[in-house]
Amino acid sequence: MTTPAKRKMPPLLAVSMGDPAGVGPEVILKAAATLASRRGSPSIAVVGDLSAMRAAAARLRDVPAPCEWHAGEPPIRLTKGLGVLSISDLSARAIRPAHPTVEGSGAAYDYIVTGARMAMRGEVEALVTAPISKDWMNRAGHHFPGHSELLAHLSRTRLWRMMFAGGELTVALVTAHMGFAKVATALTQRTVLDTIRLLSTHLRGALGISRPRIAVLGLNPHAGESGMFGDEEIRVIAPAIRRANREGIAAYGPLAPDTAFIRKAGAFNFDAAVAMYHDQGLIALKTLEFERAVNVTIGLPFVRTSPDHGTAFDIAGKGIANPSSMIAAIEYAWRAAVSRDKIARRAA
Amino acid sequence: MTTPAKRKMPPLLAVSMGDPAGVGPEVILKAAATLASRRGSPSIAVVGDLSAMRAAAARLRDVPAPCEWHAGEPPIRLTKGLGVLSISDLSARAIRPAHPTVEGSGAAYDYIVTGARMAMRGEVEALVTAPISKDWMNRAGHHFPGHSELLAHLSRTRLWRMMFAGGELTVALVTAHMGFAKVATALTQRTVLDTIRLLSTHLRGALGISRPRIAVLGLNPHAGESGMFGDEEIRVIAPAIRRANREGIAAYGPLAPDTAFIRKAGAFNFDAAVAMYHDQGLIALKTLEFERAVNVTIGLPFVRTSPDHGTAFDIAGKGIANPSSMIAAIEYAWRAAVSRDKIARRAA
Repeated sequence: MTTPAKRKMPPLLAVSMGDPAGVGPEVILKAAATLASRRGSPSIAVVGDLSAMRAAAARLRDVPAPCEWHAGEPPIRLTKGLGVLSISDLSARAIRPAHPTVEGSGAAYDYIVTGARMAMRGEVEALVTAPISKDWMNRAGHHFPGHSELLAHLSRTRLWRMMFAGGELTVALVTAHMGFAKVATALTQRTVLDTIRLLSTHLRGALGISRPRIAVLGLNPHAGESGMFGDEEIRVIAPAIRRANREGIAAYGPLAPDTAFIRKAGAFNFDAAVAMYHDQGLIALKTLEFERAVNVTIGLPFVRTSPDHGTAFDIAGKGIANPSSMIAAIEYAWRAAVSRDKIARRAA
Repeated sequence: MTTPAKRKMPPLLAVSMGDPAGVGPEVILKAAATLASRRGSPSIAVVGDLSAMRAAAARLRDVPAPCEWHAGEPPIRLTKGLGVLSISDLSARAIRPAHPTVEGSGAAYDYIVTGARMAMRGEVEALVTAPISKDWMNRAGHHFPGHSELLAHLSRTRLWRMMFAGGELTVALVTAHMGFAKVATALTQRTVLDTIRLLSTHLRGALGISRPRIAVLGLNPHAGESGMFGDEEIRVIAPAIRRANREGIAAYGPLAPDTAFIRKAGAFNFDAAVAMYHDQGLIALKTLEFERAVNVTIGLPFVRTSPDHGTAFDIAGKGIANPSSMIAAIEYAWRAAVSRDKIARRAA
């Protein structure tokens, strides 16, 4: 299920274009320009709208020319142009940057669905998603909290987690888009253990780390200080770590959350960390890794990454959007796809 | 109450020696050596044990010689020696580094009490506290969660907060040593507003910032995203900010916790931040400022700072303890005392 189908043609990543009125088209084009100049760069198929990509390219200098590509055709090398699988025919109004429309946001939904199906069929190695607007997605009649939930639904994946990867820090979240007051009750040995397992599997499969070292954070200040400030470490987190250890996973903790990410102290000597809630992981990650972090959904039957920023309607079309995170998202997906391929070939 | 008594002698800071078996004596001596070489450095009176300080000095090179000092005498300049107000006569056993004793930890309690009384009487400008062990303090029969609680008790202070100051980030905590599950209910308009007020008063009085800009964080992911992930921002935090604004305090927020501390984005354009809970503030602070951060209790009738580390019994006596945080704690106390003095003189 998770291995790409056997193909003769060079490997390929799908990039869903995101909201046509956001910075998606711009950061994809800028990322493609940067990646085109690197050796061994992936081929890309943008799942989106050819007119929107061409309009965005016309506003930028030195980016590959968007050109139509159809499923099944050989991938277009980035040095030759940027292949676009055009599945919408957006009006001029829907293509205008900075002015989101129901038409454009509805189309953005289709780009994700098509990209996911291609990834599930093995037609592409991985899916990278450019930003959508949750609010506009809702207005277009598509009600889901975010990309991950939609992709999990489309691929019938019950168990998945959000993970963020930066240059120095990789962190998976046990709970994510949930009110603070609900977090403590959502933490169970099961949800913590599932996260440790998914992270371990991802690090081995997608990054080729044979025995990943995983830091597991506590929930409470000082990791509860022996139960003085909360007992979730004793009741929930430590037992989950012990179970992971029995399965052969090198998980450590529960660590005091405020010092777990200190690099200088040599304390942060792990391949990745498991955070109990959104801000516990993301305060450290965004503070350390801003504009370099990649959002990864772990547990899906295919590799899925995205840049760690939103549609940024306010700056869309101005040519000032920073493509660093999109470049990192494509590179991460590429590395993960190559690693999975290797492992699959070794197993075959 | 908060202005130092009029004195003829040069200004002076009290430094409580902390646990004799911890790194306190060592980091005080090293900090004194560093500060002695600076112009306009403060005079220090260590409240502790002369034999313990001398034993620690004998293990170090190039530190000022500890010499006995009595209350009321002119302060000893750091270039001449390190004044010690010796209020205990510890046994050789209690002086041994790395081996805490009930005798030594009990004496450490007295150092704090004496230092606090001197600060309250205006005999010293401020109190800097070297680390104690909560566990050993309990064994010695003194039951309090930490320095702040003891100092609040001694000075009959009802309203106080923990604050941490680093080179780039200053953050006050609405809640601190409390289990994660209790935080949401401990947040009220009152507790948030009190924190904003105490922080504003401290920044004006102790740092001389005439109109401090204060960032107030949300509690939930993305600051609740309009109530989608929790409503504390709407019910509690935003109203507290509005009330602070009506009192003339430049408070902003509630900000999304994960991006509030990103410096590159220009988002972190504030003098200080208010965090809703321990790790929200301290993950960012420790990740950014390790070994430079100073712990400050705001709301007390005197300036109180401490280094942001513990007794470190495991490395005590080895000569390898890093004095950076103690130096920063003394410098912060000094700057705050000078600023309060100036303001008091202006008001007089």
